[in-house]
Amino acid sequence: MKSIILAGGSGTRLWPLSREQYPKQFLKFGRSSLFQDTVRRCIQLSDISEIFVVTNESQKFFVQGQMEEMGFDFHLENILIEPEGKGTLPAIFFGISEIVKKFGRSVVGVFPSDHIMDTSAITTIQNARELAEDYLITFGIVPKSPHCGYGYIKPDTSVKMGFTVAEFIEKPDEELAKKYVEKGYLWNSGMFLFDTDRFLSETIEHSPDIVHEFRSGKNIDEIYRSVQPISIDYGLMEKSQNVAVVELNCNWSDVGNFDSMFEEFEKDEQNNAVFGNEDASMNSSGNIILSMDPKLISLIDVDNMVVVNTPDALLVCPRESCEKVKDVVNTLNERQDERAIFHRTVYRPWGFYTLMENSERYLIKKITVIPNKTLSLQLHHHRSEHWVVVSGTACVMKGKEKFFLHNGESTFIKSGVKHRLSNPGKFPLEIIEVQLGEYVGEDDIIRFDDDYGRV
Amino acid sequence: MKSIILAGGSGTRLWPLSREQYPKQFLKFGRSSLFQDTVRRCIQLSDISEIFVVTNESQKFFVQGQMEEMGFDFHLENILIEPEGKGTLPAIFFGISEIVKKFGRSVVGVFPSDHIMDTSAITTIQNARELAEDYLITFGIVPKSPHCGYGYIKPDTSVKMGFTVAEFIEKPDEELAKKYVEKGYLWNSGMFLFDTDRFLSETIEHSPDIVHEFRSGKNIDEIYRSVQPISIDYGLMEKSQNVAVVELNCNWSDVGNFDSMFEEFEKDEQNNAVFGNEDASMNSSGNIILSMDPKLISLIDVDNMVVVNTPDALLVCPRESCEKVKDVVNTLNERQDERAIFHRTVYRPWGFYTLMENSERYLIKKITVIPNKTLSLQLHHHRSEHWVVVSGTACVMKGKEKFFLHNGESTFIKSGVKHRLSNPGKFPLEIIEVQLGEYVGEDDIIRFDDDYGRV
Repeated sequence: MKSIILAGGSGTRLWPLSREQYPKQFLKFGRSSLFQDTVRRCIQLSDISEIFVVTNESQKFFVQGQMEEMGFDFHLENILIEPEGKGTLPAIFFGISEIVKKFGRSVVGVFPSDHIMDTSAITTIQNARELAEDYLITFGIVPKSPHCGYGYIKPDTSVKMGFTVAEFIEKPDEELAKKYVEKGYLWNSGMFLFDTDRFLSETIEHSPDIVHEFRSGKNIDEIYRSVQPISIDYGLMEKSQNVAVVELNCNWSDVGNFDSMFEEFEKDEQNNAVFGNEDASMNSSGNIILSMDPKLISLIDVDNMVVVNTPDALLVCPRESCEKVKDVVNTLNERQDERAIFHRTVYRPWGFYTLMENSERYLIKKITVIPNKTLSLQLHHHRSEHWVVVSGTACVMKGKEKFFLHNGESTFIKSGVKHRLSNPGKFPLEIIEVQLGEYVGEDDIIRFDDDYGRV
Repeated sequence: MKSIILAGGSGTRLWPLSREQYPKQFLKFGRSSLFQDTVRRCIQLSDISEIFVVTNESQKFFVQGQMEEMGFDFHLENILIEPEGKGTLPAIFFGISEIVKKFGRSVVGVFPSDHIMDTSAITTIQNARELAEDYLITFGIVPKSPHCGYGYIKPDTSVKMGFTVAEFIEKPDEELAKKYVEKGYLWNSGMFLFDTDRFLSETIEHSPDIVHEFRSGKNIDEIYRSVQPISIDYGLMEKSQNVAVVELNCNWSDVGNFDSMFEEFEKDEQNNAVFGNEDASMNSSGNIILSMDPKLISLIDVDNMVVVNTPDALLVCPRESCEKVKDVVNTLNERQDERAIFHRTVYRPWGFYTLMENSERYLIKKITVIPNKTLSLQLHHHRSEHWVVVSGTACVMKGKEKFFLHNGESTFIKSGVKHRLSNPGKFPLEIIEVQLGEYVGEDDIIRFDDDYGRV
């Protein structure tokens, strides 16, 4: 079986934890991200060379980096870059086209990268392939509760290990949700299993424009410019007469907002879900308290709230209001406030940096370079840079010199001098950089050579 | 008229804004602190040489620094250092003794340094001196509301511009508070006016032990070790038969907790009191939102709450629960958590530093040195230090060298090398210091010479 992982989303409902440039699938709570957990499930279904990740240019480095971190030799050609987001049907069509090109007719599982799911259902997913020739298969989760945040699937007649689908139903209100659960309806999980031949023939029938575009001979940029945005539910699954649902009875959540995150997280003895901070709360319960800063957080007489702290933004709201977070993000976007888009820690192909202080005249950054990675050969016109190595070993090119800096050593790079930094060691290299100059914007950079094609 | 400013308190009810080592009178909201506002009122009553500040050793530098900042030539001998806190009566007795020594019999105003008060009542305070020979004068504020957070004074018969006092009353419940306001009782402000002769004779009568200690010939450490803790209300005002209250009709608050801070602060159009952060709140009102970090804070559907963010701690509680903050501080003290005592920015006689990152192997500090101030001549056994000047000019002694560093220049000080830093310039000197070593604790310091007697 081949696997497609959909990793292009930019969740706004977990702001300020997630940002447009740091979506929730790459966030880490504990050792691994939701994306990495998804890869771990897929590796039970497919060889690493048979896993394709559909994402976008800016998230490519997360995919690469998090794959590398897991020790997988994941090839760049298995990362499919969408020029822009056009919904799930084009994304899946893109993935399936590439799989067919490479492997011919196949059975393909399609998995969002931002769900929580245990591995108990893997065998059921594997066995579902016997239905794939005759049906487009969608997976339905056996509900744990009458949840209003999910769409429901009404099963019809039994076919082998699944059911035909009577109806796809939008997110219901509480009363309807209760009825659906009583009647045995299933949560619409957004996971699919397709025989590529059936997928193509059904798409030709129900969304011929997409097939037309992808077969037009245009390049991928042109295709995405022309194609209409459409979801797979609307463009294919709800229209086809040959859809089957296979029940999965496992722990699953789409972690769609902080309230469902609260449901999934472990609670402490006060029934609070606490992560990333020291807790000094009193007489408070039912809260989700998350911090990306090591910080002491104290709630007093506060119940059922969301408190999310990041280095540059803080959110406080009742759990039941957490869907409104996206309105804040919209407001920030209208104001062109970058805190909707970036974190103070910015990820790069070679590692990441954190802005520790940002004044008009100087910046302080903590730079972390992954072992064996190299920054571009570059030059700044308006700023000089001081580097102090605080962990690991640096290889520095400065003008015509080339030398090593060890823990505790430092160097100074004057404005106008070409320089390059790399980590030749086995451990992450950490550097404190103090930038000074008349102008310290990120765009004062001239690149001469780059391992990541950014010249 | 002479003035005594009481500035020794260590408010816990405004944690995490105030800390034991950074009490509320020195906090700045806007341009000046409550202490500085108090000095500004006193300067309308007394010459700067006639103002005495009673404080403690660790707060002395705040007093000096904030006086200097206001441009006052405030003499060190006018700072009276209590070896330990023993309540208001010993503190005031200490101040009055020193005033009598220096100026002989005087009329003395006594003012807490942590209250908000406008200057409209200054003339009334000045005029009250005509009563001071015959009465111990306390000032009573005309209530704006039936506040439960203040003690009340019941006036009796009219004497000149005041009233004799029928009774001092403890903080009442809501119902009683309403009655008191209807009956014309006054808020007990904690401000006094004393003729030194009357003060001394009344104290001899009602708290003879204190007079005995102060006249014993012991030094101040010994006096404070022996003297019993006692408030001026309990030790003098409630016992004397010769007390008069003078009404002040002005805007006044003791800013005793975040709820009274909310009352005093200006509100935005959503009726939130916002300070120090950018606000991105929605459908939220009646909140006090304070930050010492420049941070975006977003409340959604949150009413009447306290949200206080500092670099190392965050408090969230309903305004009506804000008195419980002291319980959190007690818990922290029990855990020996230093966040009850210090801020991440630490004040020193020569300026201040902010801990920007604290790892086991290295520290990053931003150091600010006040013009013309010099740190001690020192040496560290276990850490080396990198200094990068990001603003101003530094004079550096390193081993036998002495040199200047300008904006953008840096130096490296190996462990074991004697060094000294000073600011010879006219503007604050800002340095980024990266400390590296096997041990980076504050106590790895040997001082050889110090302008502030810390060798």
